[in-house]
Amino acid sequence: MDSLEVLWLPQELAPSSIADSRVVVIDVIRATTSMTTALAAGGQQVIPTGSVAAARATADRIRGSLLCGERNGLPPKGFDLGNSPRSFISELVAGESMIFTTTNGTAAIEMVIDARELRIACFRNVSAVARVLSDATDTKSTPIIIICAGRNGRIGMDDAWCAGHLVERILKRSPSLELGDGAQAAYTFAASLGRPTPESLAKTDAGRALCDLGLDEDLGHCAKVDDLSVVPIWCDGAFVKGGEEGADAG
Amino acid sequence: MDSLEVLWLPQELAPSSIADSRVVVIDVIRATTSMTTALAAGGQQVIPTGSVAAARATADRIRGSLLCGERNGLPPKGFDLGNSPRSFISELVAGESMIFTTTNGTAAIEMVIDARELRIACFRNVSAVARVLSDATDTKSTPIIIICAGRNGRIGMDDAWCAGHLVERILKRSPSLELGDGAQAAYTFAASLGRPTPESLAKTDAGRALCDLGLDEDLGHCAKVDDLSVVPIWCDGAFVKGGEEGADAG
Repeated sequence: MDSLEVLWLPQELAPSSIADSRVVVIDVIRATTSMTTALAAGGQQVIPTGSVAAARATADRIRGSLLCGERNGLPPKGFDLGNSPRSFISELVAGESMIFTTTNGTAAIEMVIDARELRIACFRNVSAVARVLSDATDTKSTPIIIICAGRNGRIGMDDAWCAGHLVERILKRSPSLELGDGAQAAYTFAASLGRPTPESLAKTDAGRALCDLGLDEDLGHCAKVDDLSVVPIWCDGAFVKGGEEGADAG
Repeated sequence: MDSLEVLWLPQELAPSSIADSRVVVIDVIRATTSMTTALAAGGQQVIPTGSVAAARATADRIRGSLLCGERNGLPPKGFDLGNSPRSFISELVAGESMIFTTTNGTAAIEMVIDARELRIACFRNVSAVARVLSDATDTKSTPIIIICAGRNGRIGMDDAWCAGHLVERILKRSPSLELGDGAQAAYTFAASLGRPTPESLAKTDAGRALCDLGLDEDLGHCAKVDDLSVVPIWCDGAFVKGGEEGADAG
């Protein structure tokens, strides 16, 4: 039987398990929400990098690319865009390559770029990601590993919450998947919390930190559920638009 | 305001935070259940050690001590007792020093022996632990950190479940404590699951592994709630009986 795992923290990862797995990384507040939004808005590709220096070096190599991301929640000096999902609008990002560096999300992604398949998810595309993973489940025997980025080495409620919704949606289509403790716990946790709202996300550690910076408005975007159908997939060093083409208005 | 944290995994620990904190370690299936049971049954002290070799060396130093614990769920060669809570009966352990080594529980304990105060909890003494911690909360400003031992580097449902019940009981007495994501998530998770039963614990990763070894009966002991009032506390290299004296039949 195929297995479905949720790692509440990237530190739970056994590197040996990656090469044969389909991996999904989640950082609701805000990296994977922003990246998904950026591609839905017509961005050409998102290139995650682990450090600000690496982001700058990559931007130097790719002419016309946009430097995006945050440290301590704010865009580093000279960056074109921060990490606010509401910044990634078609007018700014359509057709563009975006270099991203964030504190937790891109670090988690860097750990799993050798996965057999690598995607990112957030509440905005959670059903679309579940569809893509479930459709493949019937034909291939490949474990699914959902990785929560967490926050500064600790679990993040926002990520586990979204992971639980993803588990619930995958199970509806593939009920025979075998769940470990991480997946069972995320499922139970998310079922208990229901749908996110900006107010409920504001009570998480990441949400509180965002509000302290006056970025409360971002939570409205992070709490949107299933309004996007893009499923960013890792391809040759970048995330590109996958999923059901043409369905997003951007 | 005092803070109340739950670490779903020991890897979340920031070592610098330990010296000024009151720490509780939980490994429901089975280390902290067995240790608590052993002291409730009249054991004099429980000495956790990280390796089988260290356990044997310690036993050589302490005449008449009992070697207890497991690797892959079973007692290592020459050990007096395994890690089954039902083994720790008064007839065998009253007045004895017990050297314990287990795969996850003692490893987690070893990480935090420099805590300001260190206790262990399980479902059997969860209300007693909450009372001890809450009684101290009014007078001292010391963070409480509850650490789930987890299982082979991954989260364990049994531990997070018990941690959530501990949070719920502490909050009833000390409602002003500030909760981070780990504590909020454990609370929500445990409230959704309610009381444990042997059958529900059998569906966790640790429970399944135990059943595979034919040790299902242990789960009946791990699922008992609040039948013990002993609160093992770390004192000079060992856990000794704390809490409300004389209340346990053993």
